[in-house]
Amino acid sequence: MYAALKRLVVGTPLASSEEHHTRLGRPTALSVFASDAISSTAYATEEILLVMVPVVGMVALDSLVPISLVVAVLLTIVIFSYRQTIYAYPNGGGSYVVSRENLGRGASLIAGAALLVDYILTVAVSVSAGIAAITSAFDELSRYRVPLCLLAIGVMTLANLRGAKESGKLFAPPVYTYVVSLAVLIGYGLFEVFVKGIPPIPENVESLVSLAESHGTAIGADGYPLFGGLTLLLLLRAFSSGAVALTGIEAISNGVPAFRKPESHNAATTLVAMGLILGTAFIGLSVVSHNLKPTVSEEETVLSILGRYLYLDGPSSVGSFGNVLYYVLQFSTFAILILAANTAFADFPRVSSIIAGDGFLPRQLTNRGDRLVFSNGIVTLAVVAGILIVAFGGVTSALIPLYAVGVFTGFTLSQAGMVLHHRRERERGWRRHEVINAIGATATLVVLGVVVVSKFVYGAWIPVVLIPAIVVVFKAIKRHYDHVARSIAVPEGYRSRRKRHTVIVLVGNVHRGVLDAITYARSLSPDRILAVSVVHDDDQQRAIEEQWQRYEIPVELRTVYSPYRELAGPVMKLVDELDEEWPDDVITVIVPEFVLAHWWEQLLHNQSALVLRARLRLRPNTVVTAVPIHIHPRSKERY
Amino acid sequence: MYAALKRLVVGTPLASSEEHHTRLGRPTALSVFASDAISSTAYATEEILLVMVPVVGMVALDSLVPISLVVAVLLTIVIFSYRQTIYAYPNGGGSYVVSRENLGRGASLIAGAALLVDYILTVAVSVSAGIAAITSAFDELSRYRVPLCLLAIGVMTLANLRGAKESGKLFAPPVYTYVVSLAVLIGYGLFEVFVKGIPPIPENVESLVSLAESHGTAIGADGYPLFGGLTLLLLLRAFSSGAVALTGIEAISNGVPAFRKPESHNAATTLVAMGLILGTAFIGLSVVSHNLKPTVSEEETVLSILGRYLYLDGPSSVGSFGNVLYYVLQFSTFAILILAANTAFADFPRVSSIIAGDGFLPRQLTNRGDRLVFSNGIVTLAVVAGILIVAFGGVTSALIPLYAVGVFTGFTLSQAGMVLHHRRERERGWRRHEVINAIGATATLVVLGVVVVSKFVYGAWIPVVLIPAIVVVFKAIKRHYDHVARSIAVPEGYRSRRKRHTVIVLVGNVHRGVLDAITYARSLSPDRILAVSVVHDDDQQRAIEEQWQRYEIPVELRTVYSPYRELAGPVMKLVDELDEEWPDDVITVIVPEFVLAHWWEQLLHNQSALVLRARLRLRPNTVVTAVPIHIHPRSKERY
Repeated sequence: MYAALKRLVVGTPLASSEEHHTRLGRPTALSVFASDAISSTAYATEEILLVMVPVVGMVALDSLVPISLVVAVLLTIVIFSYRQTIYAYPNGGGSYVVSRENLGRGASLIAGAALLVDYILTVAVSVSAGIAAITSAFDELSRYRVPLCLLAIGVMTLANLRGAKESGKLFAPPVYTYVVSLAVLIGYGLFEVFVKGIPPIPENVESLVSLAESHGTAIGADGYPLFGGLTLLLLLRAFSSGAVALTGIEAISNGVPAFRKPESHNAATTLVAMGLILGTAFIGLSVVSHNLKPTVSEEETVLSILGRYLYLDGPSSVGSFGNVLYYVLQFSTFAILILAANTAFADFPRVSSIIAGDGFLPRQLTNRGDRLVFSNGIVTLAVVAGILIVAFGGVTSALIPLYAVGVFTGFTLSQAGMVLHHRRERERGWRRHEVINAIGATATLVVLGVVVVSKFVYGAWIPVVLIPAIVVVFKAIKRHYDHVARSIAVPEGYRSRRKRHTVIVLVGNVHRGVLDAITYARSLSPDRILAVSVVHDDDQQRAIEEQWQRYEIPVELRTVYSPYRELAGPVMKLVDELDEEWPDDVITVIVPEFVLAHWWEQLLHNQSALVLRARLRLRPNTVVTAVPIHIHPRSKERY
Repeated sequence: MYAALKRLVVGTPLASSEEHHTRLGRPTALSVFASDAISSTAYATEEILLVMVPVVGMVALDSLVPISLVVAVLLTIVIFSYRQTIYAYPNGGGSYVVSRENLGRGASLIAGAALLVDYILTVAVSVSAGIAAITSAFDELSRYRVPLCLLAIGVMTLANLRGAKESGKLFAPPVYTYVVSLAVLIGYGLFEVFVKGIPPIPENVESLVSLAESHGTAIGADGYPLFGGLTLLLLLRAFSSGAVALTGIEAISNGVPAFRKPESHNAATTLVAMGLILGTAFIGLSVVSHNLKPTVSEEETVLSILGRYLYLDGPSSVGSFGNVLYYVLQFSTFAILILAANTAFADFPRVSSIIAGDGFLPRQLTNRGDRLVFSNGIVTLAVVAGILIVAFGGVTSALIPLYAVGVFTGFTLSQAGMVLHHRRERERGWRRHEVINAIGATATLVVLGVVVVSKFVYGAWIPVVLIPAIVVVFKAIKRHYDHVARSIAVPEGYRSRRKRHTVIVLVGNVHRGVLDAITYARSLSPDRILAVSVVHDDDQQRAIEEQWQRYEIPVELRTVYSPYRELAGPVMKLVDELDEEWPDDVITVIVPEFVLAHWWEQLLHNQSALVLRARLRLRPNTVVTAVPIHIHPRSKERY
């Protein structure tokens, strides 16, 4: 039953030998590896505004383009840094691997913890932003936000357990549809603003008031919020939110081996193309937003507000074709964000299997499931991301402060590692490369500091606490495995020695199963054999002794009195006593056990043998043997 | 840790020999056995009104006294019927025992199922009514109704697991305080009404409208409900609700052996006293209610409305002393209802242990816990009653329709059994006794019919379905135990025969634990021995074969290839093959198993051995032996 269900849901198993790779061309590779990075254009602009608008009002829009330019500069620095990683690590250079090779174990564990936190947040943020694209278009779905997010995570989990390949066939259409949709939106917006000179979107006062209220801004007597002025800290917080646009850049450097030859060259070109798309789209969107002044809200995304105004409601409306443009924009936004989340479903299990392979995570995470995927990692990611979605109500802007800390920790460690790499390798042009990576490391470290300080109380404290905590767990797990390995190592000249052999058969009252168990026990050629019965009163004792004589059982019977009607305690005491007589023997306790056809039948039998077995298990030199008494279903009375 | 916690919560264990009885005098026995019956005065009058008032309005109060008189007649009949049971069954005559002796197995199982359902509802109804007494006095607690009910059940569960004795010391003060409080309320009420002539309580229109609305009665244009006229069915439904006043009468006939000598005589006298108190209070309360016309509601109990009016708010207010009278009334109502629920905590486990002793319920229910109580029964009762409370929102009137079916089924079977008892025994005056019990059986059967018909759609269908379903389960359990007993019976001349003995040691890679496991396996003198290693690829195969040679292990190694990275399947297949070679042997599979100091460490090791063990267990002629590899905490590296 369980097996059939599993086959249906997960698919037929794949043999280890069936693993193979198909190499990707550049356009396909762009769609596969860049979905995470490019999809952040769907929320980065909005997140900048959502930090400032509730405090200072629509004036915030004046700071949007400058902040975006700073983010774009940062993007350029990081892209050039990673270009070098791609050439230096043609087999894939994630920040865990790069820090492990160059910075040593401590740094690599921090990078690993940051990466895992990151992937979890990629799922939570991308899914919640993707569902926001849907609920922006279909307002009546808003109240199902959390269930819809969980549904999306559930579908991705199943797809990945079945072994969804990151295939170009799947990724290319939605990614390029989104890129084109976004280009059309920005292009048409710029044309309408600068050529046609359309007016900005009318301010949505109701939405502005509710946003201001929910952020604690006082409302004046005229019903309009009493906005304050811009502060440096507010600008830094807004910048920190915009910096999440850089998430996902690392993906290409991880995936170098999947490119067609020459791998590094193709990957580097793709990386730059991705940077150009991401940067252009991000700045373009900021300029359009600056001019059209959408009133950001937690109900509708900025992309949806802009699309609705340009295509449908505004003076530039294009009639019923506008509907097509608008809905294609919203659905492709949803699709690219789900693909971005799906990237984490491939990366989280892969990275955790590498970390587990090094002994810092449970070994089970290195097990490939029936479909050659790391099933345990997939399920772990889905559960933790689902918990985050529920805890933060599926609201993207609530999750953003948690997001950037892990990302920039990874960037910093990876670039710092590259600096040391160049110094060690001293390849051609290493000094120039070193400078580029040093700039990258410094810039991302500064941003990390800005994010932590400006967003600490808004949620950044969570990864700040969590990442070191995960490192502590990594180390504890490693210590455990090392300890076990030392404990079971075979010492030089070790000879396993036969010990004397005591067998105890546990007996309730005498039936066929007990007679068979005693025959089995005698066949083990024990040096000493004993049947033990735990009795609660004299009647029970007389009964068992009488049965023993009647069946002429050729084994000594020892009855143990248990005044508190307990099984395990008195048996443990007896075993201790026997052990003291022969301190060097192995004691085998035989527990006859009913095996029934149905699980509910099992519930009808006493479970005290389970308790006894759990306690005996902890005893040194004690072996527990379950001799089954098979009770067959009534229909086939005998076997 | 667990043991220490259990000691703290449950107390130190008691030996079987520590069980003893203290005999109770009549006044104490009345408080111990009558709390269930007498406590129903706290809600019976109100439940009659809650059926009629939402449909016909305050006119319903005119039918209150007639209905109460019919209930009182029924009470008298049942009391006289049970008086005879007390004399006929001095060792305790519950309806399960009486029907088993006189009506046979089928009837006794129905009675047993009805009793169990009954006790569960006693807990649910009494606790919800008890908490209603508290929330009536403290309005702000209303919204915590369900958590408060669950808290009360939790406290009772703990108290009963500790082995709360039904001691007079505990029961007498609250029971008598309630009886006196109720007598004062009724006496003062009658005096004020008939001597002083105080006016009725002003109608609470708001409360009346909300009650009518929630029962689907239309509201007129003037905002007042459009009440209809009385129908026979409505009167029967109201009577059915009033009939729950009879619950708990059986308690004394169950408890005869606990009385001082002459037991039957004392018990019979106590039964009549209980009937007098119950009947007088019930009719008195109806007369007072009829005259003061409290507007029943689901927010405040009738007792609380009457007490508030007479002592505090009305023209008969007695100043600050009224506060004392009112709060003593409410708290003693709460206390007696909790004691009534507690009665079920003693009776449910006792009855289910009797039924389990006959083989119709899981044997575990006959096990006495550390404190000589039937712990499993107590926990079962608490969980099911808790589920009912949550499902019905802790609202007494929603639970009442479920209650009476079980009670009157038990009455009918018990009295019918007594009729047959008299015919068989033909004791002195048996013809008169027979007539009394026949009247009792007929009257309660008629009431059962009335309850089922009039309340079927309001919830009575639940016990009507549930009681037969429980009987079906009883019979299935009995069939199972009979089948097991037949299966394990030792046939005449049975000789358990030594079989040939194959031992398989499961090996991952070679370490000290494996060497020890192989030594142990060889010490079992097998006829055939084999080490088995499951490998996923050629590298693993070479590695294990190389280790085998290096350590010169004197046992044949068989490697099994598992392309799907699975352990259990290939091992099962190998065992099947071996079994075919020697069809008559016993196969012992030795699974070396890490035993770690902490549970979280166990999670770090592969659980696939557990899956294997579960599957091997189901195989005939297969014994699974866990040879522990003890890994000691790091602090004490060697033992």
